Amino acid sequence: MWDYVQSHKEKLKADALLVSDTSMLGKGVPSITYGLRGLNYYEIELTGPARDLHSGVYGGAVPNPLTVLTELFAKLHDKNFRVAIPGFYDDVAAVPAVERKALNALPWKEKDFKQAVGAPSYHGEKGFTTVERLWIRPTFELNGIWGGYQGEGAKTVIPSKAYAKFSTRLVPNQNPQKIAKLVEKHIRKLLPKSVHCRFEVLSTGKPWVAAYKAPIFQVAQSALQKGFGKKAVFIREGGSIPFVTQMHDTFKVPCVLIGFGLPDENAHAPDEHLALENYYGGIKAIAHLYEDLAGL
Amino acid sequence: MWDYVQSHKEKLKADALLVSDTSMLGKGVPSITYGLRGLNYYEIELTGPARDLHSGVYGGAVPNPLTVLTELFAKLHDKNFRVAIPGFYDDVAAVPAVERKALNALPWKEKDFKQAVGAPSYHGEKGFTTVERLWIRPTFELNGIWGGYQGEGAKTVIPSKAYAKFSTRLVPNQNPQKIAKLVEKHIRKLLPKSVHCRFEVLSTGKPWVAAYKAPIFQVAQSALQKGFGKKAVFIREGGSIPFVTQMHDTFKVPCVLIGFGLPDENAHAPDEHLALENYYGGIKAIAHLYEDLAGL
Repeated sequence: MWDYVQSHKEKLKADALLVSDTSMLGKGVPSITYGLRGLNYYEIELTGPARDLHSGVYGGAVPNPLTVLTELFAKLHDKNFRVAIPGFYDDVAAVPAVERKALNALPWKEKDFKQAVGAPSYHGEKGFTTVERLWIRPTFELNGIWGGYQGEGAKTVIPSKAYAKFSTRLVPNQNPQKIAKLVEKHIRKLLPKSVHCRFEVLSTGKPWVAAYKAPIFQVAQSALQKGFGKKAVFIREGGSIPFVTQMHDTFKVPCVLIGFGLPDENAHAPDEHLALENYYGGIKAIAHLYEDLAGL
Repeated sequence: MWDYVQSHKEKLKADALLVSDTSMLGKGVPSITYGLRGLNYYEIELTGPARDLHSGVYGGAVPNPLTVLTELFAKLHDKNFRVAIPGFYDDVAAVPAVERKALNALPWKEKDFKQAVGAPSYHGEKGFTTVERLWIRPTFELNGIWGGYQGEGAKTVIPSKAYAKFSTRLVPNQNPQKIAKLVEKHIRKLLPKSVHCRFEVLSTGKPWVAAYKAPIFQVAQSALQKGFGKKAVFIREGGSIPFVTQMHDTFKVPCVLIGFGLPDENAHAPDEHLALENYYGGIKAIAHLYEDLAGL
């Protein structure tokens, strides 16, 4: 698909990009998304002993790659839940107080968030609210770890290898390539000599944020109001849509992200569904949007 | 099998127990094993969020059980590679200087050990040699960890659960039940409120050590010398043979462990083999042993 876009730039040229791949903030809250986090995804393989060893015969005198893995990742957040990688926050753009205030004033309930997650307790980067932690702050997150025996019962093994998959969510103006280098450098620095490390960057992706005071956003807000009979809100999103940053970088036009799904509608999962009120409201809003855009 | 032993104690009564399940220290070194480490095996399941979450949508505001797991196990060894569980070493019997000296003087080469393991570097509990770390010191060892995404490519998940299997090797006079309680207590103390923990002890097993100066050991040493034409050495073993401690506790008789395999003969693995010289030497030695035992 991306090859097609690159080779048909002239044909595809437009005044703006409208993408419908985001969610509404909640029921009855038409929403325009103006920011996405970027995403770098990594994998490491640590190798200690040349082969799996019996933990009785060898245990005590051989470094265990599983232990090395745990000691590594335990060092990558500090006690304030900040990412403990030198330089990680250097390029993070400060979000204006007025914008932070607007995001925190959205009709969004911490209680609903906690009910959806269902964790015994919560924490995140000190000095920021939950909404800010999700939308305007970068993260370092383990997505998978494995090594050694995972079956039923017991196997007394010191494995040769330990693995992890992990990712960083990025915000303006972090540079994905620069962050990938900082992450690799720091991990290699922390690792002891007792393991070899294969470090792989599986993908990089830029964060994106739009000037939501631009005229086209005002038109979109007004069209949503006509469709839903309610004022639309401006939100950001913690996830990433690589297509948006690619299109934005290629065509240099405003991107407007308007979607009509709700967070609890099982997107990409079994029993995905859509509320009828948003189906009809969405049709009306988009019709108004196309009509009003013509008058810009 | 064990039920049979328990219900036929009188019939099975004997003056000594001879077990052939251990190895020779090396080629040309007939060996009598007089100590085994005990083994407790554990499993934990940590549960954070009630379900797997998208790391973009939720990342930054939700505790990640994988991170909690790494932070837990990073705290269970100190910088001297000692097990950092209060009370863990309290009951460890001091090994007499003369015995440590004998173990360290065995015809055993650190170089061969390292060649067999093939790790980039080595470490273990400070203040002890490699042989001591393997045979007379207890350990805490991760045997398996898993959680989140482990397949090809990327999946941006914060998993609901994280798992680990781990074990403690025990030495005289550590009590397996007491150690299991100390391990569980300390792990529960270290864990944050952000996860629930299922802690399971899969098995416990006592360490074993024999008075190798007892007459039967002298007879065994002499019989091995007759079979192999070389003086047998007294060694310990880092692994565990639950049968030996069970039989010893039941019948209260001396146990002599003599085996004729070499460490590099792929025991319990494909292409397991046995050196012919040890096959014939073993037959001769055991014949002498039975004959000489009659004269005790």
